Amino acid sequence: MSTTVAKALTLLDQFSEDTPEVGLSDLARRTGLDKATVHRMMSVLADAGLVEQRGAARLYRLGPGVLRLARVREKSFPVTAIFQPALDSLASKTGETAHASLISGRALATIDVCESNRSSRVSLVAGEVLPFHTTASGMAALAFAYPELRERTLSSSLSAKTAHTVTDVKLLRQRLEEVAASGFAESDQGNEEDVYGIAVPVFYADGFASGSIAVATPAHRMTPDLRQTIICALIREAEKVTFNVGGTVPASYRNAAARSLASFAKMPG
Amino acid sequence: MSTTVAKALTLLDQFSEDTPEVGLSDLARRTGLDKATVHRMMSVLADAGLVEQRGAARLYRLGPGVLRLARVREKSFPVTAIFQPALDSLASKTGETAHASLISGRALATIDVCESNRSSRVSLVAGEVLPFHTTASGMAALAFAYPELRERTLSSSLSAKTAHTVTDVKLLRQRLEEVAASGFAESDQGNEEDVYGIAVPVFYADGFASGSIAVATPAHRMTPDLRQTIICALIREAEKVTFNVGGTVPASYRNAAARSLASFAKMPG
Repeated sequence: MSTTVAKALTLLDQFSEDTPEVGLSDLARRTGLDKATVHRMMSVLADAGLVEQRGAARLYRLGPGVLRLARVREKSFPVTAIFQPALDSLASKTGETAHASLISGRALATIDVCESNRSSRVSLVAGEVLPFHTTASGMAALAFAYPELRERTLSSSLSAKTAHTVTDVKLLRQRLEEVAASGFAESDQGNEEDVYGIAVPVFYADGFASGSIAVATPAHRMTPDLRQTIICALIREAEKVTFNVGGTVPASYRNAAARSLASFAKMPG
Repeated sequence: MSTTVAKALTLLDQFSEDTPEVGLSDLARRTGLDKATVHRMMSVLADAGLVEQRGAARLYRLGPGVLRLARVREKSFPVTAIFQPALDSLASKTGETAHASLISGRALATIDVCESNRSSRVSLVAGEVLPFHTTASGMAALAFAYPELRERTLSSSLSAKTAHTVTDVKLLRQRLEEVAASGFAESDQGNEEDVYGIAVPVFYADGFASGSIAVATPAHRMTPDLRQTIICALIREAEKVTFNVGGTVPASYRNAAARSLASFAKMPG
């Protein structure tokens, strides 16, 4: 039973800002399900208002039901209104693209992006479902998330997105320990060629990570100075965001971040 | 298979602004499913990020995944940004509460509300899933919706929400014909005691209704003058909304609305 429901829900993962409309054959190909099954599942999702089928090509898109659900969630537990000013501030301080992600079940959901206004910048597809292990956002969240989520992620199938993606569990575990010790995560083209991401976690009231905020730059532009500017700005903004969503910064992260800031202060220049 | 997925998705309908957090026993009671089943289904929904379980009481709430889905839909097919100014204008012109709903699968989803600033006003719970047959919004949309949806709704079980709810299929069919002929729908306390609703449809590009906009007043305040003001304002705003979402007003509705406006113009006063 659970497997059937889970399969039906993976159909929702196929929609992003890049692919807001998808046809039946495409959905079957992307999910590995047969067309008849996809058709039946999409009919049930359509009945619930989560998808709808419009236009001459009968393409599927997300339905009005998702607007209702988001409204209910955002009115009771506002987060996008809180992340937005933090991302604006990060983009303006660093001149690069800032984005926010939340742990969303077994994956990471990008919920907001503020692009830098430089003509050469990282353009992110908001609304994408991202793996934890390929992104700085994912690693920052995972290092401070519930241990169960960390173990489940490390024991799942870890596929490479670029030639730089780390998929070795031992090495990933070591990276997570480094993130836990420094308070921030870095991904040098692990998710996308020529994209360098740096991220720090934000927290729930119970002191476990709910997600992360991150800055992404074209990899060739990253310098020690820019890296330091980004990390300092992220640490500051993340603390504000956590406070504003009613979260609690745990001592482990607070100490890690303080160590990183102190090490920068000691550097020449 | 489809039944299982459909049951899992009805769990999402249990969340609204009134009940943003629900416990396991409550979910079982509301849906008629046993606790073990609800627990398994909620775990699958949580894995997909659609719900999450937080706090000491382990209550369920909607998850970050719904924010991602809404963002993807709204960026590609913006509607809330288009409905909002129409609702503001309606509330200010009529002094009453305006709201917008979209056909969302087998039901109607309230996606936005602009409350009147009078101390005596109708307070609506946005984010609620509403039946078609009890509300003016539902009847306005249904009268101009795909015939399949109309037939399916009329052949489903129609329960009463107040002593005034019409549940007789023959009478509902007659009401829908009246709505088709006048261009607007009215519900005198059919969904809630002392609430009088008036609604007009908005349309998709194919000329079928996508939803409706409505004004709700305390029933005791409704007068012929206020009724006329509301209907005229709704007809005007709905046409703008349809245009702005890239929809097409069908000739049937255009003629019906014109007849209603002309009949008002002939009235004394």
